[in-house]
Amino acid sequence: MIVLYDLLGADNRRYSPFCWRTRMSLYHKGLPFEDAPIGFSDKDKLAFSGQGLVPVIVDKAKGGKFVNDSWQIACYLDEAYPAKPLFASEQSRSLSQFLANWSGTAIHMGVAPMIIADLHARVRPHDQAYFRETREKRFGKTLEAMQEGREQRLPAFRAGLEPLRMLVRQQSFICGAQPGYADYIVYGSFQWPLRASDFKILDDDDPVAAWIARIDSLYAQELAADGLSPK
Amino acid sequence: MIVLYDLLGADNRRYSPFCWRTRMSLYHKGLPFEDAPIGFSDKDKLAFSGQGLVPVIVDKAKGGKFVNDSWQIACYLDEAYPAKPLFASEQSRSLSQFLANWSGTAIHMGVAPMIIADLHARVRPHDQAYFRETREKRFGKTLEAMQEGREQRLPAFRAGLEPLRMLVRQQSFICGAQPGYADYIVYGSFQWPLRASDFKILDDDDPVAAWIARIDSLYAQELAADGLSPK
Repeated sequence: MIVLYDLLGADNRRYSPFCWRTRMSLYHKGLPFEDAPIGFSDKDKLAFSGQGLVPVIVDKAKGGKFVNDSWQIACYLDEAYPAKPLFASEQSRSLSQFLANWSGTAIHMGVAPMIIADLHARVRPHDQAYFRETREKRFGKTLEAMQEGREQRLPAFRAGLEPLRMLVRQQSFICGAQPGYADYIVYGSFQWPLRASDFKILDDDDPVAAWIARIDSLYAQELAADGLSPK
Repeated sequence: MIVLYDLLGADNRRYSPFCWRTRMSLYHKGLPFEDAPIGFSDKDKLAFSGQGLVPVIVDKAKGGKFVNDSWQIACYLDEAYPAKPLFASEQSRSLSQFLANWSGTAIHMGVAPMIIADLHARVRPHDQAYFRETREKRFGKTLEAMQEGREQRLPAFRAGLEPLRMLVRQQSFICGAQPGYADYIVYGSFQWPLRASDFKILDDDDPVAAWIARIDSLYAQELAADGLSPK
């Protein structure tokens, strides 16, 4: 059995893009896992891993080995459990890394200032002070000031998704006929705004929204069993 | 023997990003080919292919079969000549398509207005009127007006290369330890500004420039034999 340390928000919300990548990888491989949600102020529970960031997995079947960092976890899972690979080849793994880099700039950097105050409202009440303090220090302004004017930034954000839109307009998944880790990278990035905010990040008729819905639908049973069905 | 119809500029310059993708694919596979360069006003020479765009290849070893469109050519080459694959897996092919989409937006759309007047000066003299007329009609302004203010746009263009920069800083090629089609896609996109203009699109110490130099170096012999060594 694998234990997944996942970031926990208020009302059992999960919105860490990196944790979503790991969760989807486990669903993809059909590996059963135990959910170990922790909030921002529970980092001491990760002390065993020598660092404070989720996701972390502990693989009880392999002598309690732990792995942190979503990318390292994906590589570990393909090595330890080769069936249903996340990366079809070494080349795919390299190209998936490009998708991770692209998500970090095109999605995360655009999304952060559009949802950060909403996200604050959805972290657990006793984590809010920590969240506000660390983020406002990092960005040099209040969460509310960061989020201001988001409607004006939305068109440029959506335009920046064009390389993804072109791809999922012509095929079911980023990885082709079946999803692979590159799909979960980008899907995870979108779970962040979708679960932390009600701000409409995508148009209903955006092919990117249809692609997200295809993945939701593929794992509808797993998401429902974990109380995480999309609204 | 394969014939490659490549776009020809003044002084034997080659700057079509799409033709470069095909040329590099042929080098990669070690397939000998006959160079058939044609200029903008020689499109009638492609009449056999039912369209007017390069690259087109004619595979004499396969009954004179022709293939147009650089992407289709890459797929054809891997099918007809499976050794030294351009795509290591179906998944890699899908992810390479993402790189092509990204190159089209992050590179081509940024590069075009920074080099288009320079490019005009490097098409063959008798192609210049055609080039100016079609491009000015398409973009609704003169080539010179398009190119104006490029120094101000350069920082945003370079910042947009960050997903690529992060990748080639940590590994030799986009595809990993060895280059694959995704490398040739992006390399081809850069040959366009590098061969059509003297405008410094990349800083000397940019890891992207180092990655281009690694590919140049890998195919130094082939490029020299074809009179196309980088300056």
